[in-house]
Amino acid sequence: MDINAIITAVKAGERLALARLLTQVENDSFEGRAVLDALFSHAGRAHLVGVTGSPGTGKSSLVNQLAKSFRHPADGQPEATVAIVAVDPSSPFTGGAILGDRVRMRDLSGDPGIFIRSMASRGALGGLARSTAAVTQVLDAAGFDIILIETVGAGQSEVDIARLAHTTVVVEAPGMGDDIQAIKAGILEVADILVINKADQPGVEATERALKTNLELAHPEKMEFCSAFGLSLGTFEPKAMWLPPVLRTIAPEGSGVGAVAAAIRQHGNYLRETGEWRLREAARLDSELYHLLQATLMFHWQETIAQGEFEVVFQQLLARQISPQQAVTRLLEGMVTPWQQHG
Amino acid sequence: MDINAIITAVKAGERLALARLLTQVENDSFEGRAVLDALFSHAGRAHLVGVTGSPGTGKSSLVNQLAKSFRHPADGQPEATVAIVAVDPSSPFTGGAILGDRVRMRDLSGDPGIFIRSMASRGALGGLARSTAAVTQVLDAAGFDIILIETVGAGQSEVDIARLAHTTVVVEAPGMGDDIQAIKAGILEVADILVINKADQPGVEATERALKTNLELAHPEKMEFCSAFGLSLGTFEPKAMWLPPVLRTIAPEGSGVGAVAAAIRQHGNYLRETGEWRLREAARLDSELYHLLQATLMFHWQETIAQGEFEVVFQQLLARQISPQQAVTRLLEGMVTPWQQHG
Repeated sequence: MDINAIITAVKAGERLALARLLTQVENDSFEGRAVLDALFSHAGRAHLVGVTGSPGTGKSSLVNQLAKSFRHPADGQPEATVAIVAVDPSSPFTGGAILGDRVRMRDLSGDPGIFIRSMASRGALGGLARSTAAVTQVLDAAGFDIILIETVGAGQSEVDIARLAHTTVVVEAPGMGDDIQAIKAGILEVADILVINKADQPGVEATERALKTNLELAHPEKMEFCSAFGLSLGTFEPKAMWLPPVLRTIAPEGSGVGAVAAAIRQHGNYLRETGEWRLREAARLDSELYHLLQATLMFHWQETIAQGEFEVVFQQLLARQISPQQAVTRLLEGMVTPWQQHG
Repeated sequence: MDINAIITAVKAGERLALARLLTQVENDSFEGRAVLDALFSHAGRAHLVGVTGSPGTGKSSLVNQLAKSFRHPADGQPEATVAIVAVDPSSPFTGGAILGDRVRMRDLSGDPGIFIRSMASRGALGGLARSTAAVTQVLDAAGFDIILIETVGAGQSEVDIARLAHTTVVVEAPGMGDDIQAIKAGILEVADILVINKADQPGVEATERALKTNLELAHPEKMEFCSAFGLSLGTFEPKAMWLPPVLRTIAPEGSGVGAVAAAIRQHGNYLRETGEWRLREAARLDSELYHLLQATLMFHWQETIAQGEFEVVFQQLLARQISPQQAVTRLLEGMVTPWQQHG
């Protein structure tokens, strides 16, 4: 099956073709890379929404309800197709990704406008960020309107994955040691929308207070804006500057979920109207290009250096006979770049 | 003044020569790099101790008391010379580093066996990590026995700076929203010794409990070891495996500081006896070599690419006419490496 046939099948909504393609790009195979190259011009339309939260916040349940809300909007908004990318190294789905997909699929009752993919953890989290980006790009090219990228808000790598998104939603729950979870890894700095899920549980007011306080600490420039115009952070008031709203939901019964979906749509409109959509796109591609350049250069270097030579140099470094800078000079001497061999 | 004369002066304890040299390597000047190369063979003897903690924990005061304790050990241990590197982008010393040094110097009463250097924040934190490493290496080569590297435990970059060290000390204080500070950025995973400073303040028991709980979460393998041998984490019991102790201090009156100094020495002995000292050294040099290689390759690439050419390729990428991989291929085509020009 050639690349163009695969792309045609995927864009026509063929589930099996899509699933196979995702596996190829996840595995970073040669074919997968060729397909990514070919698909790149078809991507760039979808609204990428990162949803991050600690285990126990009911994040997965909220993501499912959000998907339903985008499929069947209550307020006369156009319905949208939704893809869910579940990235959770600590989830029970890990290692049982297919089963996990099926369980969640059943909950979303086989709607052809919803597609779910759980990412298996593949050792390094850096690798996970890479393959999440690749999977997201395929789903974007396949024509899904909204892509919900669900991650655990636990560290730098999750922040990196969240940065993939146009809109970042941070999910909390009452009594989870609130400020700990929220403040962690600078996630509040990148949050566009905050959700307190399980809002029927005790402690919701304390969580809301903690979130608003941390929001104010994280965004001094927005605080200034607020005090100049008599506004308050954490309230949903779209203005010239986006002020992250703090919203309450009870996901299992769908309560408040429509308002979150509406806030996500509004944030998308805000990004498009202010030109920030293009800016975030450019920043993401710039960063992707930079990392790919670095990786390619390191790859070519590794191809040209003999393992024995590296060991000799490293032992001299360890013995402090040469400095790191001198070691680098030695290690690069023998490097011949492929584009020069053919040039 | 030639490089060898500078090195001789620095190793002879000439303060002015040392201060000038530190400024050169901090600025990453050409001379600074040449000196670093030449000094590399003289370094590798000092015990590098990272001390990290949030503002308000009394970390600086503790570091000063620790320095005094190493200079005048109570328990008949050999006295050691001490250098302090204060890295704190948020401290009042920033921008007023020289004044800050003088104030602290006065407190340490002009002891020639103590040297203090405050690092000014230079924009990017990555750059701060690099210049801290360089400054530490100079002080190591200058012959200081113990180098205390004081950082704010606020993010990934501080964890990176802490990784410079053989021994990492994490400082907390009661009632600081304890678990928040401790859990942040995975700092507990890298902590070798935990200190609760200001232990005369209320809430010290709660802080201790929170720290021990978080320690257990951070080190499942040590928990297993403890339960197998009937030990408990947070207690100072040097064994085949290092179990991070949780110690209490009241820095201004020096209370408990001697025990922290003793724990630092014991950890140094533990590292040497188990061979972990060599392993950490090798891991640090491996990582330094890797980053320097990457930076050098990127530098050579940037030297060979015309800015106009980069803009053309990036605009095509933004317009999705080419994929990131195709952009990289285009951007590398023109690259001629300096070692090939001369080869």
